[in-house]
Amino acid sequence: MTVQETLRRIVMGIDPGTVKMGYGVVEEGETLTMVDCGVVTVRADIPLPIRLYHMYSHLFTVITQYHPDEIAIEQPFMAKNVRSALAVGRAEAIAMLAASSNNTPVYSYTPRQIKMMVTSYGGAGKEQVQEMVKLQLGLAKAPRTSDSSDALAVAICHICQTPIEYQFSRKS
Amino acid sequence: MTVQETLRRIVMGIDPGTVKMGYGVVEEGETLTMVDCGVVTVRADIPLPIRLYHMYSHLFTVITQYHPDEIAIEQPFMAKNVRSALAVGRAEAIAMLAASSNNTPVYSYTPRQIKMMVTSYGGAGKEQVQEMVKLQLGLAKAPRTSDSSDALAVAICHICQTPIEYQFSRKS
Repeated sequence: MTVQETLRRIVMGIDPGTVKMGYGVVEEGETLTMVDCGVVTVRADIPLPIRLYHMYSHLFTVITQYHPDEIAIEQPFMAKNVRSALAVGRAEAIAMLAASSNNTPVYSYTPRQIKMMVTSYGGAGKEQVQEMVKLQLGLAKAPRTSDSSDALAVAICHICQTPIEYQFSRKS
Repeated sequence: MTVQETLRRIVMGIDPGTVKMGYGVVEEGETLTMVDCGVVTVRADIPLPIRLYHMYSHLFTVITQYHPDEIAIEQPFMAKNVRSALAVGRAEAIAMLAASSNNTPVYSYTPRQIKMMVTSYGGAGKEQVQEMVKLQLGLAKAPRTSDSSDALAVAICHICQTPIEYQFSRKS
């Protein structure tokens, strides 16, 4: 393996939800490049166990397609009530399970950490995140949905938090 | 297939938790028989994604071992706060996913429904549930842990809620 190969990594970001699950795959080399992004959606009227299984299967397929070196998941926002916390916990578990089923290291970041890292402002709005994701990945236009741009933002946040040189020196 | 074969079914009950996950397998024929019961435990200091993966894998193995016709899961108790609701949501998702990964129909029951069905009293304590599970399954002694007796109670509750004759008539 050459040094150049070692200094590349693929990071996948996930923005978990039980109806929509955003994902974004970013390759870090000399610059950051978007490999793919999208949203796993499941109809809300499908029974919950089947919905969770579809989410998991789709996410698992994306992970096996791109073989990310690391997966970063957006930590659940501080849910306002017990009912939404239950739903958020379910979505987070599915994302974590899809990642660890592939033996991929998983990292978690709070929404505030992600916004701080990507826009330099912890209270940034969705449009600001989308715009900064577009700039940092050199995209012609911002991702269509905020779910996928949020997922790309998690990946970017993780890449910034754990510089590739650090990863390299840890392995050596 | 003979009528006698059709009138047998195996039901697995699950009492979900992120550190301990109780399971109980009951066969319904002319009487109720306990096939197996146990508790999947994972050390609480293991990182959450790996813990969830171990829980899922263990549960998946039990399901493929006994091939239950139906799986009944205890619905999360009404968590007191957002933090515990997150944990309960994660555990429930893992149990549901293990069930639906095996294409097994999943049913949910509230703790109150289970206690009502097994002990005829919705506010029954753990000891009462253990004692009634022992009696209904004709066991020499009650299951050692309340996690596994709770899981057996979910299976018994499901069996009582959906009489086998009804299942049979639905299929015909």
